[in-house]
Amino acid sequence: MNASNVAETMQLLGSQARAASRAMARSGIAARNRALRELARLLREQTDALQAPNQRDLARARDAGLAEPMVDRLKLTPAILETCAEGCEQLAAMPDVIGDVVSLRQQPSGIRVGQMRVPIGVFGMIYESRPNVTIEAASLSIKSGNACILRGGSEAIDSNTALAALVQQALQIAGLPREAVQLVPTTDRAAVGHLIAMPDFVDVIIPRGGKGLIERISAEAKVPVIKHLDGNCHTYVDDPSDLDLAVKVTDNAKTQKYSPCNATESLLVARGVAPAFLPRIGAVLAAKGVEMRCDPESLAILESNLCSALQPSAQAATKKIVKLVPATEQDWSEEYLAPILSIKVVAGVDEAIEHINRYSSHHTDAILTTDHGHAQRFLREVDSASVMVNASTRFADGFEYGLGAEIGISTDKFHARGPVGLEGLTSLKWVVLGEGEVRG
Amino acid sequence: MNASNVAETMQLLGSQARAASRAMARSGIAARNRALRELARLLREQTDALQAPNQRDLARARDAGLAEPMVDRLKLTPAILETCAEGCEQLAAMPDVIGDVVSLRQQPSGIRVGQMRVPIGVFGMIYESRPNVTIEAASLSIKSGNACILRGGSEAIDSNTALAALVQQALQIAGLPREAVQLVPTTDRAAVGHLIAMPDFVDVIIPRGGKGLIERISAEAKVPVIKHLDGNCHTYVDDPSDLDLAVKVTDNAKTQKYSPCNATESLLVARGVAPAFLPRIGAVLAAKGVEMRCDPESLAILESNLCSALQPSAQAATKKIVKLVPATEQDWSEEYLAPILSIKVVAGVDEAIEHINRYSSHHTDAILTTDHGHAQRFLREVDSASVMVNASTRFADGFEYGLGAEIGISTDKFHARGPVGLEGLTSLKWVVLGEGEVRG
Repeated sequence: MNASNVAETMQLLGSQARAASRAMARSGIAARNRALRELARLLREQTDALQAPNQRDLARARDAGLAEPMVDRLKLTPAILETCAEGCEQLAAMPDVIGDVVSLRQQPSGIRVGQMRVPIGVFGMIYESRPNVTIEAASLSIKSGNACILRGGSEAIDSNTALAALVQQALQIAGLPREAVQLVPTTDRAAVGHLIAMPDFVDVIIPRGGKGLIERISAEAKVPVIKHLDGNCHTYVDDPSDLDLAVKVTDNAKTQKYSPCNATESLLVARGVAPAFLPRIGAVLAAKGVEMRCDPESLAILESNLCSALQPSAQAATKKIVKLVPATEQDWSEEYLAPILSIKVVAGVDEAIEHINRYSSHHTDAILTTDHGHAQRFLREVDSASVMVNASTRFADGFEYGLGAEIGISTDKFHARGPVGLEGLTSLKWVVLGEGEVRG
Repeated sequence: MNASNVAETMQLLGSQARAASRAMARSGIAARNRALRELARLLREQTDALQAPNQRDLARARDAGLAEPMVDRLKLTPAILETCAEGCEQLAAMPDVIGDVVSLRQQPSGIRVGQMRVPIGVFGMIYESRPNVTIEAASLSIKSGNACILRGGSEAIDSNTALAALVQQALQIAGLPREAVQLVPTTDRAAVGHLIAMPDFVDVIIPRGGKGLIERISAEAKVPVIKHLDGNCHTYVDDPSDLDLAVKVTDNAKTQKYSPCNATESLLVARGVAPAFLPRIGAVLAAKGVEMRCDPESLAILESNLCSALQPSAQAATKKIVKLVPATEQDWSEEYLAPILSIKVVAGVDEAIEHINRYSSHHTDAILTTDHGHAQRFLREVDSASVMVNASTRFADGFEYGLGAEIGISTDKFHARGPVGLEGLTSLKWVVLGEGEVRG
């Protein structure tokens, strides 16, 4: 496909998506739910048939020398397809978010004014690797009455093409336009440049992938982008706090999984509890091989106490396995996504809030405390998409928040903030009902 | 002020605003309301003192050859200052929008999840002419717990400087940081370029002014912009509809004022009622000197009927005063802001919705109908910030919608849509309350 063909293809996809979005906005919830259930049925029925295109992607990936964990992410196993099918059925069972009118109130002029929840229109989704995202995005788009244009990774093009064909089949069976979900049919990189610069046809872009991809898209997009760049999440252990709880929650926030964006990357500890708390959490982290990058005060406490906190049998080996290093200024801003944690002693809740507002990526930050006033101040003053009291930052997730599904996470303050579910794909427009009122 | 001084000044304003925004987010509603009432008091007390700086602006404007209507817009008359003071008092009397937690619900994991309404942080306001906008923006910013940086027109710099000093005095009396409201102290145009490109310090830009200004700001801003570019509003007279009501409402929507963005610019009429309706509304518009730019079908009806619809005494002069011209394609997209109306006959509600979604600026569009089903379809399918049934498009306004005040109007679908009041200056962040839950 040459450059002008790519441009033409994207314009065509865009105009078809816009037209389909009108039909979707008009559609009833019964038809949209039927499309989701048909899609679930097709995913199960075609599990075997989907293996051939998926094997082509896998073979190409191995030929290209992709590492096996990367190849793994491309696989459409029967288990993964079953999870996709169940996700579609769960969405079909959820209440409709479209058409609700919020607080219709009469005004002094006589008109009644309210707000109606309506689909955004058309969104463009740009993602890498996992082909199951094709089904996640398509199903959220159908449920919320939007149209979407999907641009998956080139390494999954055959799998994505086969999945998108099933989605279009399900739409057609339900009497909805096939063009409500379209896959970009070319792996040409120029297609992304067009997709993010068609404000007439695309209302919002949702990128999922590495920071480089998202930064480039944000810089060049001509429409709003729902995104998070970093998840530099903090857990702050307050004075006073329940130290048993604090050890358990901090451990979970850091080590339950290292790669998610909601894992804690920086631990702040109030000076009053630091001598009691740091050796305990340090022992847990050291035993799991977590490298600790410490400010001078926490370093001093950990260096002098960590050996005694470990079991005697482990003490001999301690000096080798405990990774204690001085933190640099850069560490306070870093998202490690790895068994590394930066640690700092602060005077109390004031300094903790100040540090977090300065260095956090505004994704998710938690306070562990028994003080009601400190909890309230933290909730109100920490300027992040999710703020937590006595809970693991790992909970910052659309499913855990009860949204049913998640299309992305936003660290911007506009529109949807934090985990973005169906509501994030809608907007509120004003409705005015009159009986011939005029303005005086 | 040279270029590097402008850059330094803007960086300083930005960092001061960010710091002040933290204090404002912490502040109680009592202090913020006190600042508003003190500001009202100062505006009344200093009405005489404000005349000297205002006279300097007026003299400069006249020396520069500004037309008298433009000079008029700069005036800080006692009546205008009293309106500003009353606005501040009204805001002080309104309920607080900050700190509300929406629907805190327990999740299966045990955590309770809700959303808290918090200030956006810092907004930058860019406006022209009228110095009273300084007070409107400052008072909305104070009430909503934000900090703001105001950039008024250079022609009003002395008036704005004097008003901003009163705002800062009121903030100080109330124990709030003076830097919560700052006026850009230079008229150098480069200051705007800096203001819209400081994402670390400014969360959103709200421009008010001509289309050229807003287009330039939107294209160059590195932060979100709340804006509307055009108000190409439609009134659609359906079949069936109450023609007495339709004449009254259409007349008001077009002629009550010509310059506001919510005035109707395009009239669509269902074929079934066109022969009965067009001559009646045509007579009203012709009598007010409104030029009608018509599609062939409406032109034919108006040309053959308009004379008979006018009073006999006026008929002789009719051929001169009735301005009937064929519409061009360009007319369907035009925002006239003048006594001009484009008119088109459509088959019915389907064609009306299609035409509006194609040509409207997504600001405000109205259907005049007695058919319930048509009304529901119009409300749901017309993709505009405000959709109305049997009311004048002129109602699209923050005060008329009961928002208490309006900082701007948005035709984008993201974040705030339509008239933007206090809530549009806030965001919802997630709050999670736990008792030591961890993720399994």
